[in-house]
Amino acid sequence: MGSTSDLPVMEKAAAFFESMEIPFEMNALSAHRTPAEVEKFASEAAGRGIKVIIAGAGMAAHLPGVIAAMTPLPIIGVPIKASLDGMDALLAIVQMPPGIPVATVAINGALNAAILSTQMMATNDKELFAKTVKYKEELKGKIVKANEELSKITYSYKTN
Amino acid sequence: MGSTSDLPVMEKAAAFFESMEIPFEMNALSAHRTPAEVEKFASEAAGRGIKVIIAGAGMAAHLPGVIAAMTPLPIIGVPIKASLDGMDALLAIVQMPPGIPVATVAINGALNAAILSTQMMATNDKELFAKTVKYKEELKGKIVKANEELSKITYSYKTN
Amino acid sequence: MGSTSDLPVMEKAAAFFESMEIPFEMNALSAHRTPAEVEKFASEAAGRGIKVIIAGAGMAAHLPGVIAAMTPLPIIGVPIKASLDGMDALLAIVQMPPGIPVATVAINGALNAAILSTQMMATNDKELFAKTVKYKEELKGKIVKANEELSKITYSYKTN
Amino acid sequence: MGSTSDLPVMEKAAAFFESMEIPFEMNALSAHRTPAEVEKFASEAAGRGIKVIIAGAGMAAHLPGVIAAMTPLPIIGVPIKASLDGMDALLAIVQMPPGIPVATVAINGALNAAILSTQMMATNDKELFAKTVKYKEELKGKIVKANEELSKITYSYKTN
Amino acid sequence: MGSTSDLPVMEKAAAFFESMEIPFEMNALSAHRTPAEVEKFASEAAGRGIKVIIAGAGMAAHLPGVIAAMTPLPIIGVPIKASLDGMDALLAIVQMPPGIPVATVAINGALNAAILSTQMMATNDKELFAKTVKYKEELKGKIVKANEELSKITYSYKTN
Amino acid sequence: MGSTSDLPVMEKAAAFFESMEIPFEMNALSAHRTPAEVEKFASEAAGRGIKVIIAGAGMAAHLPGVIAAMTPLPIIGVPIKASLDGMDALLAIVQMPPGIPVATVAINGALNAAILSTQMMATNDKELFAKTVKYKEELKGKIVKANEELSKITYSYKTN
Amino acid sequence: MGSTSDLPVMEKAAAFFESMEIPFEMNALSAHRTPAEVEKFASEAAGRGIKVIIAGAGMAAHLPGVIAAMTPLPIIGVPIKASLDGMDALLAIVQMPPGIPVATVAINGALNAAILSTQMMATNDKELFAKTVKYKEELKGKIVKANEELSKITYSYKTN
Amino acid sequence: MGSTSDLPVMEKAAAFFESMEIPFEMNALSAHRTPAEVEKFASEAAGRGIKVIIAGAGMAAHLPGVIAAMTPLPIIGVPIKASLDGMDALLAIVQMPPGIPVATVAINGALNAAILSTQMMATNDKELFAKTVKYKEELKGKIVKANEELSKITYSYKTN
Repeated sequence: MGSTSDLPVMEKAAAFFESMEIPFEMNALSAHRTPAEVEKFASEAAGRGIKVIIAGAGMAAHLPGVIAAMTPLPIIGVPIKASLDGMDALLAIVQMPPGIPVATVAINGALNAAILSTQMMATNDKELFAKTVKYKEELKGKIVKANEELSKITYSYKTN
Repeated sequence: MGSTSDLPVMEKAAAFFESMEIPFEMNALSAHRTPAEVEKFASEAAGRGIKVIIAGAGMAAHLPGVIAAMTPLPIIGVPIKASLDGMDALLAIVQMPPGIPVATVAINGALNAAILSTQMMATNDKELFAKTVKYKEELKGKIVKANEELSKITYSYKTN
Repeated sequence: MGSTSDLPVMEKAAAFFESMEIPFEMNALSAHRTPAEVEKFASEAAGRGIKVIIAGAGMAAHLPGVIAAMTPLPIIGVPIKASLDGMDALLAIVQMPPGIPVATVAINGALNAAILSTQMMATNDKELFAKTVKYKEELKGKIVKANEELSKITYSYKTN
Repeated sequence: MGSTSDLPVMEKAAAFFESMEIPFEMNALSAHRTPAEVEKFASEAAGRGIKVIIAGAGMAAHLPGVIAAMTPLPIIGVPIKASLDGMDALLAIVQMPPGIPVATVAINGALNAAILSTQMMATNDKELFAKTVKYKEELKGKIVKANEELSKITYSYKTN
Repeated sequence: MGSTSDLPVMEKAAAFFESMEIPFEMNALSAHRTPAEVEKFASEAAGRGIKVIIAGAGMAAHLPGVIAAMTPLPIIGVPIKASLDGMDALLAIVQMPPGIPVATVAINGALNAAILSTQMMATNDKELFAKTVKYKEELKGKIVKANEELSKITYSYKTN
Repeated sequence: MGSTSDLPVMEKAAAFFESMEIPFEMNALSAHRTPAEVEKFASEAAGRGIKVIIAGAGMAAHLPGVIAAMTPLPIIGVPIKASLDGMDALLAIVQMPPGIPVATVAINGALNAAILSTQMMATNDKELFAKTVKYKEELKGKIVKANEELSKITYSYKTN
Repeated sequence: MGSTSDLPVMEKAAAFFESMEIPFEMNALSAHRTPAEVEKFASEAAGRGIKVIIAGAGMAAHLPGVIAAMTPLPIIGVPIKASLDGMDALLAIVQMPPGIPVATVAINGALNAAILSTQMMATNDKELFAKTVKYKEELKGKIVKANEELSKITYSYKTN
Repeated sequence: MGSTSDLPVMEKAAAFFESMEIPFEMNALSAHRTPAEVEKFASEAAGRGIKVIIAGAGMAAHLPGVIAAMTPLPIIGVPIKASLDGMDALLAIVQMPPGIPVATVAINGALNAAILSTQMMATNDKELFAKTVKYKEELKGKIVKANEELSKITYSYKTN
């Protein structure tokens, strides 16, 4: 993340990795304030065994794209809502030029970034793939339960 | 893709896979007109050995999200510019709810979708990883060459 | 609705049906989390005697369009404000491709969705038609009464 | 429609009704230039046996909402792209206040307006319902055929 | 105004007319809920001696345009912020088609609407013209005084 | 107007004044390039007998607001489409602060600006008022004629 | 600044100049309410030894552009968020026509305006240049420290 | 510039420097494709005697911000229109976080970037200051001449 002020959004990704028992690390690295540290991190990441990088940033969000320029690893960008409802961060992350993609998720969508990174790593990992299948089942369970609670609301003209 | 009218955009992904010698298949499947075919495709994809799915769609672009709901494979969404400069497709693809990510690339960014899918598959594939490293080198070469051409433009007050 | 978090918006439709004594049912069905349940609901709806379906959803709102793809019944979409002031949901619902319309109402406009569904069913139902005529009269009464209250505000230079 | 300049968009609705053998009429009525004619049309429509009204308009598109204020019939609004990519017309049609819905379709979506009106009328008309089911089948057929044509494109690394 | 919920915005116009001793009246008239009352008001306004009409409305704001269609008097439209930051109301008021202008002021700009109406009436009224000149002088005075207060803030490196 | 490149838009106002036999003058005055000339024009306008000023400008359109700051005459602003579909000019003209209104018309709406200025001047001028009434009648005639031409289009299932 | 209501935003610039020991002055000058004072300030600024002018304004923000029209000094514009999330002010400041630039910073970005003005003055001032280099070093220090604090958060599956 | 495809926009800056006899250099450097070259350029610029850097980029335009992060020199950003009417580039350049300003000009505003850079350098350079004063005079002359041409257009009811 570009600043620790992004932690309340990004920690949802950390919580997901914890619950899935997937190793991860967290860093505050700013494309604008610590460009040398960003370059060091990005250029060394693949060699250190990192598989996927999630980068969250707000406003003129450059961090995901700058990292993507410096490593062949897949980069997931999380637009963080800091101004203009997050539209500036969304466009600054998703509209990458040909050759340097950033896999962009929803504004403040750090949980989805974590899930997506797991799906990427699961493409060649049967155990991780099984975990993602199980995770999706549980999501479905929540909606099914919500529907059951809805059915308990009583209206005179309700048919079910 | 949702319709063959999207082919001029999406064929850039096919051309990339050809150049990289990566096996792929192309389908026209509409979330709105052929929902049963989409479901069949999505639910069978992982079992058939497909690793990543790229879905391009315009307007109220549902195809990427609908497929993401039906498979644990990673889905890449390409917003296609058909109306409102592609802003409607971008928002309909990227703003997915918690639990079901779609890795979104730039409007009409089919080439980047293909590169991103390769990066995903390369996370556990050394040969493919080497190919993506080589591809990035070639991109850099084009800019370096462009810079050389720029330097040939003659102005009286230009310093280099 | 796609999630019970949408209930505060969607219950205005339920209240309208209660007041008009029109039978209805409420379900939480997610296009993304329970696609099989959505398909079962949509494909059985006409056979069960349902006349119109109202679907509310936020963000990359796919529920109305996904249901519209699976049934010949008319679908009314309610964009729910969850991000970007609801503009993402509005575009993801209204910009449907040729062949699969969704009748879209205002952001958070669940009451209007209920009224619209009644107008649809009233096209061949004289009793229901009479009810909608009466409802519109009552709306007018509220404005007329508001105008009377306005006229009681005293200003020195007000002419009426 | 508000002006005959809207005819190239709106005639797609007429063509649909022709192909479905559904009686219809076409009028140019402007909420701004011929308000008395609009009122006469709207207030007499139900009595003349009209079941649904489709109103197309651009810019500060008032026609659908003005008609909706004057009749209990369901109104379908077609935002016509004349400025700002049609966003002004979309918002001026869809954002109706509580009590007076307009069923809004996509920008320039006159075909969908015609299909939607048919679905509305089919809620209590078995013959018309059968026609809409058949129409949806044909739409699916076009995508299936498109998919077959896609499969004929030859790439070295294509899998199907 | 279209509803008494707009009163907190629109009463700034009333306060201006009070302070300028200009006769006015206030009405709640809805283009959507009381179209007949709007027509009666608009068609009789010129005959009753009304010189300018200010119409405030939110969302798909039709009131200013509907009145403009029914009277040759100049109409001033005030977009009221009720959704989408008032952008829907702004576009629904300002983007009028050729032939039927609405003089649009800023979102929630009821005070400016009142000032503008006074400027219009002052085009042939010397006394009113003198009042508007005096009002502008007083506005300037407020800024001059604000500047004096600013100059009292003490900073070590401030030059004045 | 701010530049003669705006002439194709603004000359519609001139044509209207010609057809209505209303005296007018045209100037190219730039708030940014000729501020002293703008100030001279604005501060002398009322004394020279000018009743209303129409100012057209594009991009960061300052001309209408700058003139409004320097004269008590009513100012009409025409946002000219030069970039961003004219949205920048619209916001830069309509969102004036309290105290200094600009009567804003549609993007490129020079004709409406001319009509609006005539309505303003007609508030105390019976002859001009009669002209605006006549003008509105002719507008209506065009739509009535258009409707007649529409009725000549032949469809098998058309009812009228 | 255009009004003292902008002081909470603009005082961040003052605080920066204080901390950098750079002389400055603050004024409330409105392009719309005190145009003569603005002209006096702008035309005299260069002669008084002012090097750079920072102008903050909201809504239809004309102040930066109006000053830029009246002095050859570089002008920095700060769009102030007062309506529409500050988008109206941003466009009204940044979209200046050819010939009259305004150096625009982020919405509410008064601190960046102060830094930018220092960078401009440092182009020919070695002492000031050294100060800006030092300031950037300190910014980097904050992120490095934030990263250290991040590393203290304990998760079971965190790798560092 | 980020790519030679930006040359048609950026060469207007070169033409300005030629006409003003100000030394300059042009480079194609991509924040995404040649990050090492960008870093080398940015970190060496001040030492080589460069005073101001103008960076033009489109889409998710990172080049200006990335350079700003690596040098204390003032950076001017030119948003280039490549998609979404240039709005993505504008937001990606102007919305920089506190500490790292980019002086942003209008979309495609390369000429203004060149003028602004000259104004910056002129803050401590009397000869350059005199040149910018002269340039502004010539701009005014063009408008004055345009006004003379406007006055030659003949209308019956034109007053001047």
